Amino acid sequence: MNKAEIPRKTVYRLSVYYRVLLALKNIDTVSSEALATAAGVKSTQLRKDLAYFGQLGTRGLGYSVPALTARLSEVLGAARLQPVILVGAGHLGSALLRYGGFAKEGFEVVAAFDLDASRERARDLSIPVYSMENLPAFITEKKIKLAILTVPGAVAQEVCNNLIKSGVQAILNFAPVVLHTPEQIVVKNVDLAIELENLSYFIR
Amino acid sequence: MNKAEIPRKTVYRLSVYYRVLLALKNIDTVSSEALATAAGVKSTQLRKDLAYFGQLGTRGLGYSVPALTARLSEVLGAARLQPVILVGAGHLGSALLRYGGFAKEGFEVVAAFDLDASRERARDLSIPVYSMENLPAFITEKKIKLAILTVPGAVAQEVCNNLIKSGVQAILNFAPVVLHTPEQIVVKNVDLAIELENLSYFIR
Repeated sequence: MNKAEIPRKTVYRLSVYYRVLLALKNIDTVSSEALATAAGVKSTQLRKDLAYFGQLGTRGLGYSVPALTARLSEVLGAARLQPVILVGAGHLGSALLRYGGFAKEGFEVVAAFDLDASRERARDLSIPVYSMENLPAFITEKKIKLAILTVPGAVAQEVCNNLIKSGVQAILNFAPVVLHTPEQIVVKNVDLAIELENLSYFIR
Repeated sequence: MNKAEIPRKTVYRLSVYYRVLLALKNIDTVSSEALATAAGVKSTQLRKDLAYFGQLGTRGLGYSVPALTARLSEVLGAARLQPVILVGAGHLGSALLRYGGFAKEGFEVVAAFDLDASRERARDLSIPVYSMENLPAFITEKKIKLAILTVPGAVAQEVCNNLIKSGVQAILNFAPVVLHTPEQIVVKNVDLAIELENLSYFIR
């Protein structure tokens, strides 16, 4: 199965299914309806997503929890061993470094970079904070492919270009700008203000 | 135009177009192609999104920047005056409170709530941190409709239920669980570990 054929949203939902299955680890089989409900999707969606990976369920019986968990772990497996760097150790960046949620899921943030590597808010961190000058060499030497971008919007595109030039292939972007990148680079934007604006639009 | 008819993703992109337009404020007109490129979408998508709000452009001339900016401001306008509360002032929650990005966009985080309102990490914040006991009364009295949820996964559903019972209609959820909510409640999940897993899946 060619990775490029599987939609990003399907892969995203596989991560959700995987987490739901981990919570069901004492159960033998689960119906597509029950798994879909727990994951917050329609069962037709779930069946379509899992169909990318061959025949995984049995009609009338549902899915074997251990088998499906193992298969999804295999599909997503390599993804959870990527070393990550964080660029921009300001308020949000330092906070994300302190946030335990990445390591718990198997992602190691190996280093952070900032214009001012000695700024106070970064001083109590267990993750090393280096100066931006060291960024290209670090990425190349450690073969870093994945970066979290928490720099101010005004410099985000420039920093992004440098990341890509050094070998980064995927960026989790918190800077409130649209990054322009070559087609093969994967970017996910998390713009918290836009998320709030979007939610509040639908308030009655 | 009934709000319910406009897809959430269209509204999300309107927020992006609006921000791009603000950056173009010295320009009179912009083609749909140029605006779409700046926003990182296809021009067919942009035209389709804007078509929900009537005839906004002129064929061959493009869009008037001031007129389109004003129209989107009107469409999204009310959304940017919602008071917001944050529930769970742990590492990530405290970080978001320190993050200036919400206020800059017109969202005021009016209060935070935590099981332990006096915990040290929250002490230097300018936003008041109250005990969870005060949550229902605060939501009702201040007519809060929008909440940021940064509690641990194990208690997220319970806290979510309490928020909804008190009148919250929209939740920006950072807890790494699928929240089950009534249909009329709008939830946006930001699961940072899943985002990283998703990005790294596509690394070659």
